[in-house]
Amino acid sequence: MTTHLPQPLRGVVPPMITPLADEYNLDLPGLKKLIEHVLAGGVHGLFLLGTTGEGPSLSYELKYEMVKKSCEIIAGRVPVLVGITDTSFAESIRLAEHAAACGADAVVLAPPYYFPAGQAELLEYFEHLAPKLPLPLFLYNMPSMTKVTIDVETLRKASEIDNIVGFKDSGGNMIKYHEYIVAMQDKPDFSMLIGPEELLGESVLFGGHGGVAGGANIKPRLFVDMYEAAVAGDLDKIKKLQKEIFVLRKLYSCGQYSSTFIKGVKCSLNCMGICSDFMAEPFRAFRQSERNKIETLLREIKLLD
Amino acid sequence: MTTHLPQPLRGVVPPMITPLADEYNLDLPGLKKLIEHVLAGGVHGLFLLGTTGEGPSLSYELKYEMVKKSCEIIAGRVPVLVGITDTSFAESIRLAEHAAACGADAVVLAPPYYFPAGQAELLEYFEHLAPKLPLPLFLYNMPSMTKVTIDVETLRKASEIDNIVGFKDSGGNMIKYHEYIVAMQDKPDFSMLIGPEELLGESVLFGGHGGVAGGANIKPRLFVDMYEAAVAGDLDKIKKLQKEIFVLRKLYSCGQYSSTFIKGVKCSLNCMGICSDFMAEPFRAFRQSERNKIETLLREIKLLD
Amino acid sequence: MTTHLPQPLRGVVPPMITPLADEYNLDLPGLKKLIEHVLAGGVHGLFLLGTTGEGPSLSYELKYEMVKKSCEIIAGRVPVLVGITDTSFAESIRLAEHAAACGADAVVLAPPYYFPAGQAELLEYFEHLAPKLPLPLFLYNMPSMTKVTIDVETLRKASEIDNIVGFKDSGGNMIKYHEYIVAMQDKPDFSMLIGPEELLGESVLFGGHGGVAGGANIKPRLFVDMYEAAVAGDLDKIKKLQKEIFVLRKLYSCGQYSSTFIKGVKCSLNCMGICSDFMAEPFRAFRQSERNKIETLLREIKLLD
Amino acid sequence: MTTHLPQPLRGVVPPMITPLADEYNLDLPGLKKLIEHVLAGGVHGLFLLGTTGEGPSLSYELKYEMVKKSCEIIAGRVPVLVGITDTSFAESIRLAEHAAACGADAVVLAPPYYFPAGQAELLEYFEHLAPKLPLPLFLYNMPSMTKVTIDVETLRKASEIDNIVGFKDSGGNMIKYHEYIVAMQDKPDFSMLIGPEELLGESVLFGGHGGVAGGANIKPRLFVDMYEAAVAGDLDKIKKLQKEIFVLRKLYSCGQYSSTFIKGVKCSLNCMGICSDFMAEPFRAFRQSERNKIETLLREIKLLD
Repeated sequence: MTTHLPQPLRGVVPPMITPLADEYNLDLPGLKKLIEHVLAGGVHGLFLLGTTGEGPSLSYELKYEMVKKSCEIIAGRVPVLVGITDTSFAESIRLAEHAAACGADAVVLAPPYYFPAGQAELLEYFEHLAPKLPLPLFLYNMPSMTKVTIDVETLRKASEIDNIVGFKDSGGNMIKYHEYIVAMQDKPDFSMLIGPEELLGESVLFGGHGGVAGGANIKPRLFVDMYEAAVAGDLDKIKKLQKEIFVLRKLYSCGQYSSTFIKGVKCSLNCMGICSDFMAEPFRAFRQSERNKIETLLREIKLLD
Repeated sequence: MTTHLPQPLRGVVPPMITPLADEYNLDLPGLKKLIEHVLAGGVHGLFLLGTTGEGPSLSYELKYEMVKKSCEIIAGRVPVLVGITDTSFAESIRLAEHAAACGADAVVLAPPYYFPAGQAELLEYFEHLAPKLPLPLFLYNMPSMTKVTIDVETLRKASEIDNIVGFKDSGGNMIKYHEYIVAMQDKPDFSMLIGPEELLGESVLFGGHGGVAGGANIKPRLFVDMYEAAVAGDLDKIKKLQKEIFVLRKLYSCGQYSSTFIKGVKCSLNCMGICSDFMAEPFRAFRQSERNKIETLLREIKLLD
Repeated sequence: MTTHLPQPLRGVVPPMITPLADEYNLDLPGLKKLIEHVLAGGVHGLFLLGTTGEGPSLSYELKYEMVKKSCEIIAGRVPVLVGITDTSFAESIRLAEHAAACGADAVVLAPPYYFPAGQAELLEYFEHLAPKLPLPLFLYNMPSMTKVTIDVETLRKASEIDNIVGFKDSGGNMIKYHEYIVAMQDKPDFSMLIGPEELLGESVLFGGHGGVAGGANIKPRLFVDMYEAAVAGDLDKIKKLQKEIFVLRKLYSCGQYSSTFIKGVKCSLNCMGICSDFMAEPFRAFRQSERNKIETLLREIKLLD
Repeated sequence: MTTHLPQPLRGVVPPMITPLADEYNLDLPGLKKLIEHVLAGGVHGLFLLGTTGEGPSLSYELKYEMVKKSCEIIAGRVPVLVGITDTSFAESIRLAEHAAACGADAVVLAPPYYFPAGQAELLEYFEHLAPKLPLPLFLYNMPSMTKVTIDVETLRKASEIDNIVGFKDSGGNMIKYHEYIVAMQDKPDFSMLIGPEELLGESVLFGGHGGVAGGANIKPRLFVDMYEAAVAGDLDKIKKLQKEIFVLRKLYSCGQYSSTFIKGVKCSLNCMGICSDFMAEPFRAFRQSERNKIETLLREIKLLD
């Protein structure tokens, strides 16, 4: 039932939002619609329980349910990656085991996000953790949330650890991304994915394998097109699609806090009739005034009549 | 069996370290020794599963065990506060219920530490959470870990919420602490505690109720003496004790990462024969070279022969 | 004509604002009134061309004029300290020579504020600069502006350099201030002054020599009283004065940018009829709406009828 | 004698280092050699007294001399841009007037770098300053030094001010650079240049006009080639040149502080026999150990025999 995980994993792997009925329950019909919506866009994998998926905000019961139901619905059509980032070592392992049992293909882990670890500490932590995981591991650089950057040298050394097969960089720093690419150029099977959708085009042009574009929840085809244009080196198309991406991202700036990105994605999907926009604590769905802005923008880009 | 929680809670409430036998088990004999060691110093309460207690790094099973065993050992001799800070709303509540069942007296909560919430979001979160808790709540300002500061105005409004009874400020910014004190001066029952032990003396001199001094794991009497000297306004004694505190804190700078504080406390307690120095992931106990420095320092201050 | 500079310099040394008629000229009548106003409050020195004095924003011509005129008006009644912080080594020296020629008593220098220097670089810089200065030098820690903190060890080593006689800490971090105090405790002649007025009381209680309180431009006696209460160890008076200081500082939060402090001080002095509120570029005086707030506050604290 | 300044200015405009004989004097023979070396690489302009040029560290006398001599040597062969960033409004204007008198073609200005201005304050400052300048103005975003980012909306509004003709972004944030490009896409004559040389290729691919590559002091042709490859859309060549750029930048990491970039460039030029490596205070040239590393690297890339 599981897909073979390509090495390297290439393409667009959306960080799926978690449709919630309320604080304690999934919006299951919404989850089904969302998965079909995103898969219909031609994406190359799905990433559950990441930052966009509000992974850290969910109870363990909900996380487990989300992985189980999503794997059932996806049913091997694309590789499934599951976020297991946790401040507790044991809970990361437990979730990875559950993901494996559900048929997921890989797990994704950012540094523990309460205590900031030094680079040597981080590397030892990866060395301890990776062998205990039943699935291949992608490291995840997300300094705005974890307060810790995975340094180039740390990535380099971590890539020598058995079972670590890729890297997702959400640091947003293209200079550093080039450094990662240079450092890993002799390991062509090690998957190099970029987080911010605004950088998908150029990261692939310079040797990256794809990206984890949050906006692909809303408009998956746009990012698949960008990925393919970048692989093909079609600069005119890239420039045209980049403009579209910069229109789409207006959806993310309707609120005033850093939560505005996830709120904007969930509100958009709700306006489009796909799933609930309920947010896990400590956040709440956009109120009517922000929702009005979202609707107007969705109409402008023909995602709403 | 529970103690009456004084309002306001005053004095020294050490953030107890969590003695670990290994990643999955408590060092139970060590826990007993540690509690007796700290209580013998005359402290006014104990705070479990805080930052110093490596709360976020422990599995839920271990957290629950730690609360249960500690409450049994303390047996109502002093009020017990339990850290329930979590990125998941449901898990915070669940742990609070467990703490209540074990006979703890209050819970302590910092903002969720993955997604940084805005002040309005934070206040709504407190409003949603507090009524669901079976125990009085202390808010906990810890921006170096949570990336979010609880603003003066947010504290002021949160203090109006039923069930929120106090505040622990570990921001380390005395100007802001004075602002908090000024903002809360008409609520004399609302407990105002300070985190950094270096600021215990002056915070009490200016109207604070006490502190959550990490060094009290090692030398509890020193901080109880400082608290009492500050209450008595004995400036000569305060200056003398402050110097001792600044000698003690050399124990915290033997390592090179931000984990050096907890490692230093645990290593000291181990050298003193009290409990294990095992650290939860992603950290590891000091190696021999740092341990040698700790031993030398402990000898200088007569905590080791 | 010069005063003898006490060693250590003790007391309240206000960082005087620079009264400006326009971008290119001093408000000379205002300068006279201001100096008399501040001296009448019993201050122990005056600090020209600091942060509050908008030193870095002034042309060299204006800086030189400000030093010359101020020294003439002060006429040796209190020690005069002149800020020579500059990104150019040569210009710092040139201004120090001018200050000496005008009869100033000491100069004050923060790290060069464009390129952030490492600690070893900083120490070498102090070693190169100090011998070239014709006046004793106070080092000035102001990380919010210079991006660089003068570390405890750097201060310790710099204090060995001939001609460096004191330290002004505007870092706002009381833990660090205690560390500086501990590090310098065997050099009782080395002057330890604190920047933020909110910390004047406690810094003196714990061994500091005084402070550079910006609010002393407006209400000098309040800070002189606080200094004296702290020297006398009169805790009741300290608490009472601290409350007054926290009322006064409402004047600093009427605007929305970090410039609000200086704008608030200048606007207050203008409302009080002392001097112009003209701000050097890139700032502008408060408009009417903020001015109304200032006037209301000044009436509440009886500084305006 | 002045060149016509193209609108927009396109291509590679190296931020020239300032060759110094000592703290007070130019290395004039070095300056001549350096200018010929860089011009021989086919660059499209020269930028004097920027960050790489240690502009803020030089005395006014030295700055004026540097502009005068450089303009004489360049003699209209390429446009000359002069950095006039200053914390003093009057000094910025004075230096701009001198630059105009020497025959420079434009001036470049980052926000005043002591007091951090808010966006509204910044815009007013640009509005006040631009009309007083005798030369066209490029705004310069350099938040790591100035602590202030020029927001997209501020740039947009500033571009409406007469006399502001371009923008140099050294923020290093490609997401933001795309936002700037989108915001300015209807003003094709407004020059959009990027600072970090690692981003030159992709910025031009996505619509930027060129860059201010510091490494072009050492190897100007490499960056001219990259610019031309990007204009031509030659992706294979871009990837090859990008690798070379990432080899060259090893020269910048031989030291341990943030000054390592400029020290590395100056040391390289000195090893190559072009000019002195004397650094203005607060820095000092690399000592022998770092110099050895530089020599080894230069040999590897055939810039030294």
